[in-house]
Order: sequence, then C-alpha cells, then structure tokens
Amino acid sequence: MINYDKFLSRAAEHMKGSAIRKMGTVLALAKDIISFAPGYPAPETFAWTEFQDIARELLSGRDGSVLQYGPTRGYPPLLDVLTGIMQGRDVPTARERLLVTTGSQQGLDLIARVLLDPGDVVLVELPTYTGAITAFRNVQAEMVGVPQEPDGIDLAALDATFERLVRDGRVVRFLYLVPNFQNPTGLLIGRDKREAVLSWAERRNLLIVEDDPYRELYFEDSTTEADVRPIKADDTRGRVIYLSSFSKTLAPGFRVAWIDAPAALASKFEIAKQASDLCTGGLDQRVVYEACRRGVLERQLPRLRAHYQHKRDVMVTALKREFGSEITWPDPRGGFFLWATLPQGIDSDAMIGRAVEHGVIYVAGEAFFVDGSGQNVMRLSFSAPSPERIEEGVARLGRALRAELGLTGRAVSSPEEPRPAAR
Amino acid sequence: MINYDKFLSRAAEHMKGSAIRKMGTVLALAKDIISFAPGYPAPETFAWTEFQDIARELLSGRDGSVLQYGPTRGYPPLLDVLTGIMQGRDVPTARERLLVTTGSQQGLDLIARVLLDPGDVVLVELPTYTGAITAFRNVQAEMVGVPQEPDGIDLAALDATFERLVRDGRVVRFLYLVPNFQNPTGLLIGRDKREAVLSWAERRNLLIVEDDPYRELYFEDSTTEADVRPIKADDTRGRVIYLSSFSKTLAPGFRVAWIDAPAALASKFEIAKQASDLCTGGLDQRVVYEACRRGVLERQLPRLRAHYQHKRDVMVTALKREFGSEITWPDPRGGFFLWATLPQGIDSDAMIGRAVEHGVIYVAGEAFFVDGSGQNVMRLSFSAPSPERIEEGVARLGRALRAELGLTGRAVSSPEEPRPAAR
Repeated sequence: MINYDKFLSRAAEHMKGSAIRKMGTVLALAKDIISFAPGYPAPETFAWTEFQDIARELLSGRDGSVLQYGPTRGYPPLLDVLTGIMQGRDVPTARERLLVTTGSQQGLDLIARVLLDPGDVVLVELPTYTGAITAFRNVQAEMVGVPQEPDGIDLAALDATFERLVRDGRVVRFLYLVPNFQNPTGLLIGRDKREAVLSWAERRNLLIVEDDPYRELYFEDSTTEADVRPIKADDTRGRVIYLSSFSKTLAPGFRVAWIDAPAALASKFEIAKQASDLCTGGLDQRVVYEACRRGVLERQLPRLRAHYQHKRDVMVTALKREFGSEITWPDPRGGFFLWATLPQGIDSDAMIGRAVEHGVIYVAGEAFFVDGSGQNVMRLSFSAPSPERIEEGVARLGRALRAELGLTGRAVSSPEEPRPAAR
Repeated sequence: MINYDKFLSRAAEHMKGSAIRKMGTVLALAKDIISFAPGYPAPETFAWTEFQDIARELLSGRDGSVLQYGPTRGYPPLLDVLTGIMQGRDVPTARERLLVTTGSQQGLDLIARVLLDPGDVVLVELPTYTGAITAFRNVQAEMVGVPQEPDGIDLAALDATFERLVRDGRVVRFLYLVPNFQNPTGLLIGRDKREAVLSWAERRNLLIVEDDPYRELYFEDSTTEADVRPIKADDTRGRVIYLSSFSKTLAPGFRVAWIDAPAALASKFEIAKQASDLCTGGLDQRVVYEACRRGVLERQLPRLRAHYQHKRDVMVTALKREFGSEITWPDPRGGFFLWATLPQGIDSDAMIGRAVEHGVIYVAGEAFFVDGSGQNVMRLSFSAPSPERIEEGVARLGRALRAELGLTGRAVSSPEEPRPAAR
C-alpha cells in the first residue's frame, strides 16, 4: 500500500485530534458511562415544539430559497437579528461587520487562517478552550499561555509575557479570551479587568479575539447581565473580534454562530468562508432566524439559566458530600463547567482508565493547557446529565478517586466509607 | 482607525473572492435579472413534502441527539448509507474511509489543508471548478492547468506538464478532476481515458482528487450509468480521493456531502474537520439520512434527470434560434452547465455590464481558468430558471451580444433582426 506520509502538508503533520472529541468515541463504545466530558447542552431544554412548527412552515415549499445556496455572509434577515442581539449586549454593529459562521468553531478557524502565519504567537489564558487550541495549531501558530487570577487573566503576567516574546523577536498576533464562564474554568473576567485588558491591547497594538458562547447562561443567584458585558462593548477603535453562538441557547445541531468584527476583517473572513463551505446551512439559519423573530430565544433564556444553575447546585452539593475538601473548585457563576483541582499527586489523565471502569468520564485538565501543565485538574460538565445522573456520576467519581488514592498510597479522607464499584 | 493589513496572514493576502459568489451580490441588487450564473439546483424539484414529514418526526424531541453535537466523522447510520451509495457506484468502501463534510466545498478545503503546502502544485483541468481554485489558492498552492479534449483531460499534455514541473524542481501534489459533466464545461471524461488517467497517476506516483457532484444527473437520451463510473471504482491501490454530495440531488441548503478516501487520509481529514467546524449539522444529516432510508433520493433521481434534460433542451433550442452558429458549445450530456464560446474578439467579462443592462447574467469564462485565458467563453447554467425564463434569458443574451458586436464594429450574423432592449 501507499505510504501517505509523504503526501501530507506540514500543517497536517501538526494537526492533533481533540481530547474532548476522543471522549465522544469512548462514550460511543460504552453506553452505561455517565459523561461529565463534553460540554453538551441539555436536549430536554430545546424548544422542540417550536422548532417543529417552524420547520413545518419553512419546508412548505412556498419559499424555495430555504433549501438553496445562500449568501456567504449569512441569511440577510438573520444578520439584522444579530444586529439587534449585539445591540442588546451594548455593542452597536451593522451588517458589514457581521458574518454568520457554521458554529463558532468555524469562526475560530477563519480567524486563524486570516490572521496567523506559521510560527506566529497567540496569547491565550492558562487554561483555555481546546477548540481554539486546535484551530490555531492547525495553521501552525504557537500559543503562549498566561496564568489566570480569580477575576481572569493576570495582566502583569500578560504584559511580561508579551515583552519577553517581542524581545525574542516573535510576532504576537492577538490575545484570545473567553471572558464569560470560561471553558474550562468557569471563570468570569472582572468588570474593571475587561477595561484594563482592552487598554492594554490598545497600548500594545494587538487585537483581541473575544469568544463568548456562554454569556446568556449567567446564574441569577450570583451574577447579573452587567457582569457579562462584552469587552467589545467598549471597543471604540475596532480592536476586538467578537464571536458568539446559538449552540448553547437554541441547539448545537443547527451549527449557527457569528462573528462581529471590524468591517475590513469581516470581509476577509467572508472570503475565507467562501473557500471553507460556501455558506452556512440554509434551513438551519432560517430556523434560528424564526426562533429569534418569534421570541423563542427570548423565552428560553431565563429557563436555561435556571436549568443550568440547578444542575450546578446538584453537582456542587454532590461534590461536597463526596469529597469534602479533598478537591476544590471556583464556584461556577454561569455556563456549563466546573473546574476541579484534585489532591496533589493525582494525574487526572492517568486516572481516566479507572474512571471509565467506574462508569464515569471527564476531560483531563492537560488538554486545556498549552504549556503542558494541568495534571491534577479536571473539567466536569454539569450541563447535559440529569440531576440524578450528576449525583450518581459524582459518586462514581468518588469511588474512582478513592481507588486511585489507595493505589498511590495516600490517605483517604472521604466523608463516606468506600463502596464497591457499581460494575 | 486601525490599518488591518499588517494583521493579515500571508494566506489572507492571497485570498480572492469567487466570481460566482459576486454574481449573487449582483442578483440581490437587481431582482428582474434572469440568472444563468450560479449553478443552483431547481427548488421546485426538491422533495418538500417528504422533508416536511421527516423534519416533523425528527423534531418531536424523542431523540435529543438530533440537535446535539455529533461525531466529526458524521452520523454513523448516514455513514452506512454512504457505504451503500458508493457500492452502487462500483466503489466498495467502509466507514473508516468515509467522512461527512459540510458540503463538498469543505471537502476541498480539508484536502487542501491536509495535502498542500504553500508553493505546492495542483494539476487541474483548463477550465476547472472555481470552488476548487479558491480552496487550493487559500493555502497558497499554485494551480497549473492542462487542456481538455472532447473526452476530457489531454493525457499527453498532462504528462508533459508534469515532467516540466518536476524538471523545474516543483512539488506536484495531486491531479484534481471533475470527470462527470464538469463544472464549467459539462464535459465527461471518456471511459478509456478514466483508466488511462489512473494508470498515469500510478506511474507518476500522484494522488487524484475526483470531484463528482453531478454524476446522478446524466441525461438518459445520450448517457448511461456506465459512462459516469467513477475513476475511484478501479482504484485498487488507494490513489483516489473521491468527493460527492447531496447538494445537487436533495438540496444544497442541507450542506451534506462526503469524502471517500484511503483510511489513513480520511482520519487526517477528520482531524482537520474537528478544527474547522467540529461536525456537520445534526438535523441536516438526519434529514438526508432519512431521505435515503425512505427511498426519497432513489425516487428523485429519474425525475431530476428528466427535469434538467428538458431544461438543457430548452436552452439549446433557444441558443440555436437566437445565435445560429455565432456561438458554439459541447452538448451537455448531464449536469447543470452549458459552456458557450462566443465570437472571436468578444470578451465575456467585459460584456457582463451590458448583459446586466439587458437583464441577464452568466459567469465569464475567465473565472475558471488558472492560466488567465477564457476571455471569449461563458458558463450558462440552465438548472435553476424555468423553461420560460431560459427562453427569455437567451433572448436577452442575444440582444446583449448583438449590442456588443455592434460596438466592436463586427458583422452581425444573427438569424433574427436586432430588437430593442427590454429595459
């Protein structure tokens, strides 16, 4: 047979599969596993009936363009809806700054292709979203990480890192941030820090890529809309490329997201998108448009906030009961994720096999760190499983961790007696 | 304001918008134009009622995964359906060789990213599909064109071109072909030539990218299924990467297509797709799957063949009536396109303004040539307009051409008297 290695591009040699996507494969193999791994929204929250009605009307055949190729920019009435949504987030915008993308992953990919050459540097948070890591790595960019504080990225470290890179002759292209309920930490960048980071970018003449899929999912017990105000809202100079999505609020199966960027860049992203997929799915865009126009999205949001807040509560309570102070985490004030630090010496990646044995999975922290750290952290998604499954999953996780602690010879300080594994 | 040029990647500097997509913009501006420009399928042929039924069932909420993120490879039952479809095309395949893509445009993009480095050469037909040109150019590859004969690519010229490139120290990565009813010429590669081109690739140790969106749309008055047998059908060594799509047979609005490639490459394309859009839309894939499973696709195909054959007839008759022998074309035996050669000295690109004045558009031939030629050809799509609009559009084209000929001082040899322009 042919050895295909010699046919591969240099970019292909650098491509690596996503740890989270691999989890999907594990899941498909073993159906009784409780998954805290992928950041899936809860399908029971989707507006099924409304989608059914909308699809029936759209597929009546009255408007042939529903299933036709469409403009690369996006379905024009949807662009207008996006203008309204951005307005609601304190970001005045216009059609020429907007681009509908096939999920935010495509947005990240287009940004990578339009802004990054091989060897260029992207500054990212430690840890950061794996989908961004793969998109940037696929164009052979290098990511350099900056630690986070409880209120987000460490500005002093950011500036020191930037200076060091420039001194080393590196080309730093932009700073990538997930300011609201970051994937994976769940952290929120503080209000003052948002302004500070924008001033910093201005001073250092850098662009900011602000990735904001979770902002609508703030938990009302601790967080208000003012806390999730985009950095882009204060961006008078056109320094911020903003991404958001309907995947977490309507459904990811529609693959509809958007970029709001300075017009000169938006038109570059549009040209890159032409070559990537011509246009985002027509039916998907229409369903999303109708769901916005008919107020479905608006009605969903408070329900989603309550839904995920409740699941967060269930997970936090179960974790406390199961682990006491053995593991720690910053309390998620929104979004899908809880970022758990394990006892020193436990390697979350090495523990995955044992977790699967006990019928539970998570994403090992390492996948989110561009500096090879993150061994004793894990990302737990509370978004998709039911409250009962969350409780059972945490119990299974407890058994897995206790077994792991036993093996490594450490003291077991669980509040409960170890129980035999369920299977 | 910020000058964004210095923020752009070298790839972005090379990106160019598609001439065909620009036509979409012209169309949006002036609604009374008859468009022979984009290769759109006819929405009146879509299986609206069946799609409506399928969507209603899928959106009942019984199966939450319909609107969830899915595997990057594609919805597994759809992969199995694709195995059957490929079998029907004489190509035995298996899940590990298949990848669902977000339209064939994404397939071309993934191929470009996995196989091409900047400066690498792709051999293409003269003319060739613009979407492939933009995908390959976006990774800074260079395309070198090979002329076509009536039965497809000129093999002697192909080999001479290859030898010259190798002598010049160039890296030639693959040969890109659209063997069935090529976009834009409508040409079909002859049966013997298909085998010959595969042997040639074997001898020269090159890959072939076989792009096959139109194969089901052969016109039964002149063409049989044997004529559209894929090159891939004889590919025992794993030299052919095959692309096909549901865009022309079910609807492009679903953005569902596929790649059939050697397993080692398919897994690379999968990893590249992860970073591009995570997965193709869940609802779209399910609708397509159900349409296949329920026999909707099977029932559609003979209807589509008859539909487009009839439109081809209408266009050919109208062109003969309008132009006599003034313009010439190879008779399309399938697909969407008629490739018209204008009188010597007429520049089809320069004539577009006049055509728009007369209420008709087409794509100027130049867009399909990687060597800058093609000035006096145009691509006319007969797929989307109604028969009446085709007749009226050809009449408008006649007026535009006669006006153009008058301007350039040439004799008008039309079988009809020139009439005043409609508007």
